[in-house]
Amino acid sequence: MTLFEPRPRTRRVCLLSGGGDAPGVNAVVRGFVHGAHRHGIEVLGSQYGFEGLLDPKGLQPLSIEHVRGILPKGGCILGCSTRCNPFFVPEVHGATTVDRGPAIIDRLKSVGVEGLVLIGGDGTALAAERFTTLGMDCISIPKTIDNDLAQTDVSCGFDSAVETASHAVDALHSTAEAHARVMVLEVMGRNAGLIALHAGVAGGADVILIPEIPYRLDRILVKIRAREALGRRFSIVVVAEGARPCASDVLEVEAGRPGHLPRLGGAGARLLHELEASDLDHEVRLTVLGHLQRGGSPSAFDRILGTQMGTFAADLCRDGMYGRRVVVQAGRLTSIPLKADVAPHKQVDVEGALVRAARLVGIDFGDTAE
Amino acid sequence: MTLFEPRPRTRRVCLLSGGGDAPGVNAVVRGFVHGAHRHGIEVLGSQYGFEGLLDPKGLQPLSIEHVRGILPKGGCILGCSTRCNPFFVPEVHGATTVDRGPAIIDRLKSVGVEGLVLIGGDGTALAAERFTTLGMDCISIPKTIDNDLAQTDVSCGFDSAVETASHAVDALHSTAEAHARVMVLEVMGRNAGLIALHAGVAGGADVILIPEIPYRLDRILVKIRAREALGRRFSIVVVAEGARPCASDVLEVEAGRPGHLPRLGGAGARLLHELEASDLDHEVRLTVLGHLQRGGSPSAFDRILGTQMGTFAADLCRDGMYGRRVVVQAGRLTSIPLKADVAPHKQVDVEGALVRAARLVGIDFGDTAE
Amino acid sequence: MTLFEPRPRTRRVCLLSGGGDAPGVNAVVRGFVHGAHRHGIEVLGSQYGFEGLLDPKGLQPLSIEHVRGILPKGGCILGCSTRCNPFFVPEVHGATTVDRGPAIIDRLKSVGVEGLVLIGGDGTALAAERFTTLGMDCISIPKTIDNDLAQTDVSCGFDSAVETASHAVDALHSTAEAHARVMVLEVMGRNAGLIALHAGVAGGADVILIPEIPYRLDRILVKIRAREALGRRFSIVVVAEGARPCASDVLEVEAGRPGHLPRLGGAGARLLHELEASDLDHEVRLTVLGHLQRGGSPSAFDRILGTQMGTFAADLCRDGMYGRRVVVQAGRLTSIPLKADVAPHKQVDVEGALVRAARLVGIDFGDTAE
Amino acid sequence: MTLFEPRPRTRRVCLLSGGGDAPGVNAVVRGFVHGAHRHGIEVLGSQYGFEGLLDPKGLQPLSIEHVRGILPKGGCILGCSTRCNPFFVPEVHGATTVDRGPAIIDRLKSVGVEGLVLIGGDGTALAAERFTTLGMDCISIPKTIDNDLAQTDVSCGFDSAVETASHAVDALHSTAEAHARVMVLEVMGRNAGLIALHAGVAGGADVILIPEIPYRLDRILVKIRAREALGRRFSIVVVAEGARPCASDVLEVEAGRPGHLPRLGGAGARLLHELEASDLDHEVRLTVLGHLQRGGSPSAFDRILGTQMGTFAADLCRDGMYGRRVVVQAGRLTSIPLKADVAPHKQVDVEGALVRAARLVGIDFGDTAE
Repeated sequence: MTLFEPRPRTRRVCLLSGGGDAPGVNAVVRGFVHGAHRHGIEVLGSQYGFEGLLDPKGLQPLSIEHVRGILPKGGCILGCSTRCNPFFVPEVHGATTVDRGPAIIDRLKSVGVEGLVLIGGDGTALAAERFTTLGMDCISIPKTIDNDLAQTDVSCGFDSAVETASHAVDALHSTAEAHARVMVLEVMGRNAGLIALHAGVAGGADVILIPEIPYRLDRILVKIRAREALGRRFSIVVVAEGARPCASDVLEVEAGRPGHLPRLGGAGARLLHELEASDLDHEVRLTVLGHLQRGGSPSAFDRILGTQMGTFAADLCRDGMYGRRVVVQAGRLTSIPLKADVAPHKQVDVEGALVRAARLVGIDFGDTAE
Repeated sequence: MTLFEPRPRTRRVCLLSGGGDAPGVNAVVRGFVHGAHRHGIEVLGSQYGFEGLLDPKGLQPLSIEHVRGILPKGGCILGCSTRCNPFFVPEVHGATTVDRGPAIIDRLKSVGVEGLVLIGGDGTALAAERFTTLGMDCISIPKTIDNDLAQTDVSCGFDSAVETASHAVDALHSTAEAHARVMVLEVMGRNAGLIALHAGVAGGADVILIPEIPYRLDRILVKIRAREALGRRFSIVVVAEGARPCASDVLEVEAGRPGHLPRLGGAGARLLHELEASDLDHEVRLTVLGHLQRGGSPSAFDRILGTQMGTFAADLCRDGMYGRRVVVQAGRLTSIPLKADVAPHKQVDVEGALVRAARLVGIDFGDTAE
Repeated sequence: MTLFEPRPRTRRVCLLSGGGDAPGVNAVVRGFVHGAHRHGIEVLGSQYGFEGLLDPKGLQPLSIEHVRGILPKGGCILGCSTRCNPFFVPEVHGATTVDRGPAIIDRLKSVGVEGLVLIGGDGTALAAERFTTLGMDCISIPKTIDNDLAQTDVSCGFDSAVETASHAVDALHSTAEAHARVMVLEVMGRNAGLIALHAGVAGGADVILIPEIPYRLDRILVKIRAREALGRRFSIVVVAEGARPCASDVLEVEAGRPGHLPRLGGAGARLLHELEASDLDHEVRLTVLGHLQRGGSPSAFDRILGTQMGTFAADLCRDGMYGRRVVVQAGRLTSIPLKADVAPHKQVDVEGALVRAARLVGIDFGDTAE
Repeated sequence: MTLFEPRPRTRRVCLLSGGGDAPGVNAVVRGFVHGAHRHGIEVLGSQYGFEGLLDPKGLQPLSIEHVRGILPKGGCILGCSTRCNPFFVPEVHGATTVDRGPAIIDRLKSVGVEGLVLIGGDGTALAAERFTTLGMDCISIPKTIDNDLAQTDVSCGFDSAVETASHAVDALHSTAEAHARVMVLEVMGRNAGLIALHAGVAGGADVILIPEIPYRLDRILVKIRAREALGRRFSIVVVAEGARPCASDVLEVEAGRPGHLPRLGGAGARLLHELEASDLDHEVRLTVLGHLQRGGSPSAFDRILGTQMGTFAADLCRDGMYGRRVVVQAGRLTSIPLKADVAPHKQVDVEGALVRAARLVGIDFGDTAE
């Protein structure tokens, strides 16, 4: 390189993880940082999701050294934030909110960032679209333990969450059987029962309740009693937090208690209440798996998926292919236009192969299907 | 053996597991059954604890075949029951209760049972004393995940419960750190904080709250803020279900809300409420570990301990040494008289080595000790 | 049903597991037995693979009771056998072998078996073809931890094996780092390096050696030294048992030691020997994962896959759709003609996305690719 | 503090980990660093054991920041070394060795180190004695997965190693049963069979072979055949690497093959050879657990033990109580004089309670005891 040869401008991108954390995100971060450095692209990491874009110290260079040894770790070395919406930030000492989007774009451009790579779920993908409209090119990488993103077969974190939840079903089996109890396990899934379905099948649950199939309490009682009649004195119910009784059952409950319906927690607490109020002669116990589903070391599957998604996104950056979303379709990693994201959330296919397999091995969904 | 030699009468004992289940009980059952058969003693197993003593079909022979392959399994192949008190059984269709103890003794003697071996906690040990008074010789084997039995260094199930709980602390660490949250983990322990103390130390908790040390909320807030000042934006609190605020704090809360104190669940729900009502600027999340602590495959320690306790009890039977309780004292397996059981429950030694070590590594107990 | 109504003949099929065992096979067995019973089809289980077809006591009815609680168990309740080829059975007291195929068919037909369902790998699928030729309809279900069956995206057992192997890589990391050593981990894969590739990526290996890419020792040394130069004093090498040096390296070794090349075990032992004979200044240690890859509780993924494959095969039986092989293609469970099985074994796609991602995160394959 | 008040000299100690790494050492390091800082004592960490004492850059300050988050990690953040003996260091370019002990002492004193704290096994404790003789006060903390240190009930790392090894026995069970094989698992223990004994009991092995009880091959064959006669077609043998046949067996083998006895690896390889050369009609498979025993996240027990040992050693430093060794005796943490270390290694008590319990549950030790 001679003295007068123009020094090539280093390319620079910004990486952040929005929304709730999920096992495997560190694999994405590591994969992306390695890939970008191979392609001669510098990476700035935004701390705590969108917060870092607003915080003067929130953007820090991410080198290969930073991502060493993070593959087996849960969480995300960048931090996540579910509380910060970059477009509506409340002003201190005032009720008004301001859209900080344009200010963020200015800042990113002022430090030479050519593109923004966002790891996240639905809300994060919407933010990516909005940033694009404002003039900052984006790439999004799907991550959610719920696996409810419509455009991708699988998102980073789902396999680990299912593994954790099915271990919990295993653990409850022994105590359920020892005490001849009904054990209820509430897992995540407000709109989609995918974790409940997969963990219930993997753990050998007797009943699985999901938002997609409103349940009838009497069906559940029939199942528990049928098991008892066969000498199986215990039952395991896996319930997604968004599961709910079908309309007629709700009316009945409300009719019986005019004026005040107890404020219930998730679907698990409601079901516990319903089972205890029924004429069932079993002890019932509730376990809410909660944040344990997000934690712990990611599964090999999620580490591999995350590594591939991260390096794939780095390739897109190298080629200047912004405005894309990384997805898995028909078992292959690929990318689709970012705006394709308007599809509704993925839910359990109630006529699909897995629900059918579950019914065949004797799992009841609290409906009248059989 | 000649024709006229008197045929030796086969000796027979009955084995049951009372109270809540605990990992490692199957090792006790397996060890006892193997040992007894070596000594030429038949074993009858009582199904579902004391229930089996009252149920015509509740006593079944336990052979070597029955205990094959049960070592890695949680729960108890005999079943447990926390609902059945043999001495006060409610009569059907009537409010009166009857003491079924004498009837049980008659039944056991009528089938040639010479002694009763009870695996259990405090309630079970009391039952053992009462059966002895009524004329049935007993041996008791300590089992409780809480480890609160006074006469023994360690009970079957504690090590596994601590292992499970400390894995949960590990799992919460990653999500706490990613989200800069305060994560509260409630573990078992109504009167004794031993699980909380051990799991908190093993998992690297920041605060441990136990029944033995009433906590002050302001101390916890000081700790969380001190960590924040050092750039540690998250904190992990492990709380025993029986932990409670010190008296002055309780009064303050009640004073502030005359007339209605919300009905709270365990100590975790109370603490969550208190932290959310405080001026702390962190998101707080609660996880109740619940029945997951009892389930899953027992640790190697509990399998070894259970195997030794079971075979030791079989040796006591062989030698006719009834009226004994199997214990570990000063690291050695031994036995003590059954009536020695009147000692109060074991609790955390708040001046002991482990609490001191915990304080030295920076763990706060919510008190003003330092 | 009137007295004169002809009693419908009960349909009956036979199920067996051939070849090496794999985690998740019990889920297949459970799924198939449940599905078949729903469809009114009786199942006979053949004990120890093909052995049971030859043994008078080797065929036993499989009821719902037999498959209770087997989902979390490794191995296969039916037993497997890698030693028995039904078509060439050595005669006792003689060197001749006989084809027992026709005798097996006669026996199965004499007890009313209409079809044979075989869980297994390549050898088992070949047997299925041969049985079909001899007049017994067959369905095959793919199972192999190596995942080298060409017609299916994934086989039962692979995900669990990768999970186990990547945990082993995790475990070796800490001891490698503490001692500044080169740790070699040999995993299964004689012809296909799929376990090595996936576990190596998931565990963050530094070098992965697979049969598909002959390695050059000097490349491995370069990688280890490059790490050392960056202050990383340890390296992790994951090697498939079938990996081998490229031709020129082999000749060199043989030239150096004319007359006697030590009989080496798997590729791990060979590599250990080569590294120790090199001028590398590190301690090198070998771990052969061996049978630990087949054992242990199956992953949730394999339990779900197995349940689906088993129930799917039962549906095929119900519909009389014999001569089919259950497969996963483009992420969907489906079936293809049994004879399609002539395709060569699946291997790692050395130009594929995962190898490329691996190279981008800095993993070396011992070749001169970069 | 007034201007003229003499500034108190900061106290300073040096910490190192010698010998092979063991799970839980990071807990010791973390506990010691926290405790020392509380007591106002600075800690220098020596990198890679004794190597750091000789390397100009090998001594680095250890702050609270350095030990954050290391509790769940295997290995040792300081590094270990089994290759470096500080008292006999080979000179470069010459065959002579020199004792670097005095130079090390000079160096440590020159940087104000008042005492040396050594985490390690037997060799490390000997070095501690020697350093003391040379004028540097020492404290030693016992660490060895083998648990063969005589003066302490338990050493850091043993519980984790037993847990790992018993999981391996669990995993081998399923594949052994599926294939009707004899599975041999070799675990660590050259002189003491403690890991083999504990893991074998916890995992439900059928035969345990340890250095303390020379085995007779014919006894093992009798056991395997007795199981087969009961319909148990598989057997699990756990063998310590230092197990060996009794003298008469060895002679027989040598007599049969005059002139060349194959060079065998550990006891597992020898046993595999013996079993395959016998007239046993089972397939036999060997798994050598190797370095997997040292790796992985430490058990809760080892993390608690390590934390206590580390803080206890810091208390000793604070009080100037050098020349002590931290031990657990009769279940209590305490210290004894360093020179008490001359006791021989701990071995399995072949007449003790655990061997007896093992025999009662049917485990054979390859001897003629029963």
